Amino acid sequence: MEHMDSKDLEQLRVNGDRLWQNLMELAQIGATAKGGVCRVALSNEDRIGREWFIERCKAAGCTIAIDQMGSIFARREGTDEEALPILFGSHLDSQPTGGKFDGAYGVLAALEVIETLNDHQVQTRAPLEIVSWTNEEGARFAPAMVASGVFGGEFTLEYGLSRADKEGKTIGQELERIGYAGEMPVTGRDYAASFEIHIEQGPILESEDISVGIVTGVQGMRWYHLTIEGKESHAGTTPMDRRRDPVRAVLPIIQEFYALADEYFPNIRMTIGDLIPSPGSINTVPGQLTLTFDIRHPDASILDTVEKALQDVVQEAYSASGQAIELKAIWNSPPVSFAQECIDAVRRATVITGIQPMEITSGAGHDAAYINRVVPTSMIFVPCEDGLSHNELENAKQSDLVDGCNVLLHAVLDRANYR
Amino acid sequence: MEHMDSKDLEQLRVNGDRLWQNLMELAQIGATAKGGVCRVALSNEDRIGREWFIERCKAAGCTIAIDQMGSIFARREGTDEEALPILFGSHLDSQPTGGKFDGAYGVLAALEVIETLNDHQVQTRAPLEIVSWTNEEGARFAPAMVASGVFGGEFTLEYGLSRADKEGKTIGQELERIGYAGEMPVTGRDYAASFEIHIEQGPILESEDISVGIVTGVQGMRWYHLTIEGKESHAGTTPMDRRRDPVRAVLPIIQEFYALADEYFPNIRMTIGDLIPSPGSINTVPGQLTLTFDIRHPDASILDTVEKALQDVVQEAYSASGQAIELKAIWNSPPVSFAQECIDAVRRATVITGIQPMEITSGAGHDAAYINRVVPTSMIFVPCEDGLSHNELENAKQSDLVDGCNVLLHAVLDRANYR
Repeated sequence: MEHMDSKDLEQLRVNGDRLWQNLMELAQIGATAKGGVCRVALSNEDRIGREWFIERCKAAGCTIAIDQMGSIFARREGTDEEALPILFGSHLDSQPTGGKFDGAYGVLAALEVIETLNDHQVQTRAPLEIVSWTNEEGARFAPAMVASGVFGGEFTLEYGLSRADKEGKTIGQELERIGYAGEMPVTGRDYAASFEIHIEQGPILESEDISVGIVTGVQGMRWYHLTIEGKESHAGTTPMDRRRDPVRAVLPIIQEFYALADEYFPNIRMTIGDLIPSPGSINTVPGQLTLTFDIRHPDASILDTVEKALQDVVQEAYSASGQAIELKAIWNSPPVSFAQECIDAVRRATVITGIQPMEITSGAGHDAAYINRVVPTSMIFVPCEDGLSHNELENAKQSDLVDGCNVLLHAVLDRANYR
Repeated sequence: MEHMDSKDLEQLRVNGDRLWQNLMELAQIGATAKGGVCRVALSNEDRIGREWFIERCKAAGCTIAIDQMGSIFARREGTDEEALPILFGSHLDSQPTGGKFDGAYGVLAALEVIETLNDHQVQTRAPLEIVSWTNEEGARFAPAMVASGVFGGEFTLEYGLSRADKEGKTIGQELERIGYAGEMPVTGRDYAASFEIHIEQGPILESEDISVGIVTGVQGMRWYHLTIEGKESHAGTTPMDRRRDPVRAVLPIIQEFYALADEYFPNIRMTIGDLIPSPGSINTVPGQLTLTFDIRHPDASILDTVEKALQDVVQEAYSASGQAIELKAIWNSPPVSFAQECIDAVRRATVITGIQPMEITSGAGHDAAYINRVVPTSMIFVPCEDGLSHNELENAKQSDLVDGCNVLLHAVLDRANYR
């Protein structure tokens, strides 16, 4: 082992071509005609992707452990047997029409960090563990981030293993089938710190021309169903004053919805993603209309205020129309603030690498949010083209991916060598 | 043959119990558990219904002819060989979850008129022909009213026979299969007058406590698709000022839509029956939103004005949002004014029977609208419970059905004995 002093260590940079080649090679597994990836959790493509990844980790000298949720841990030993390991990675599963970078970048950037340390024979005090979490996407098995959720104490192991796909196959059964029903307990292991690097999946870094985002937390997210009862009736024969039309009744609520989005600009996100009329026929006044609301903000008190304002306008619309209207919360994910010590480590890494970063809040959920409940954690973002993700056209610039990976390298070294 | 003077003839009334019994007997064919009827066009149930009806007509002394669209004509001869026949009837096919009265009432009321004339040995100058049109509903084969449309010159025979269901089976094939591919030409026969009696399928007569509506015409109907392009993007990661949200962009158009409905109250009908977001996912800003507009009014110039106002607000919304918005007309059925001579005959029939009528415009389409293009035609409406139709719970009062049938009897006699 070569001994590098801290000055030399600061010069360390990853091999960007190898990182890119690994990304492109992994993207061949489950490749789609449009240039994307279909490697849905616990599919045969996921199994092949896992095997390819494990081979690479073994070639890099890591030892492999699979936990009871099928997540893969590839460990590189440190010099201090008593030091808690540093965890870093992401996920290898994809959306059915996903891209090459979502998840894969976080796992392969972690591999690249270890290969870079190997190249330069750098040993760390603390052990390093790359992780690939099972079923981050939730595209096949709901909910998303289920394995990291068990790790972080949000779900029980039993709950995680019993999640079923549309055909009724459970995560437990499918882990058995593809040979990844591991024996290592999911919980009960300690780590000193954890990092996840990921494409932003939004347009902010790209528009600011910044290659690295220091992610300070994850927005709180709340999902609602707004359901308005109408009276199903014939579009031709029912006079206007004898209708109970849910489309008309919902208008003041939608207006208030967007007024609130303006009021709490720029940090709020408010989306009406789905509108479901019943029966949904051109010549029938709908008997019911359901809208979905997705509302996100880093500050839970703002989310409370917005929810209260919506409930008020729902009440007003009910009074005005006499139609039954219900705003029902169906999911509430509180805001996450990442660990300051990890955020600081990432910031120091940007200084070491001479990269100009910006602070950013994650608008999407990530495994890191659950991990942060039990391990000091933070994230690093890099831009993706046009903010596009969950799409076969997802793309990212090699130079940005390399910048992010160098920051990851030095953030990990920071925590791994800390006493 | 008994000779009745005109005074005796005016005393003639139908047998209300027989009419009701026939309706209940026919409703057994294709009966549903909820009390409705499933006798979709050219299904086996439709075939059985046709056979039952033809047996009844033969028992009433009628001769049967089937035209090339499979419509059934049951003829009772008159005394004047040169007189043009009077046509009256409706349709025997139903919606998949239809009611007992829609269509069936018009056909069986016509049968009841002939049975009443038989009971009293009344012969008419002109021949009488009951008709049951093929595929009025359009539930299986689009468009609706296709056989009467061929009769009225809206469609060619070739077009009518080539209409296919979702499995690709055409009307021509299915007529062959059930044995109703007749040889009589659909067009080219002359009639002196035509009547169709039908439940209102709306709430007006019931709310006015009136048993007979003199239908003076059919509303003009226009259907549109309003399509707004958005940009599909992540609900969590896309800042509000970087979105192209079609739900937000459509709001001023929907507001103008209902403002126009208020402006042209009470004769207008404006319905947004379907809203189709794409992809329709709770955490994705839709990439596209399509709304359906159904707009009806008895006056085509009002429909023109409303269409123009909507095109203007679409243009404004396009200018304001920069999002591609298109209002596309997909169907235009001009208003129909029924023949004054037939409307007058119906009015005289209400006087003869001592029934207080009201004039009404049909909000729904009917075979009579197409027939009116080639034969002087009008319609009679009777109330249905709560205005409900196209529904297994469709219901009507026997006394209203009998009132309507008596008016039909005397309107037919009026035209059949006219020189």
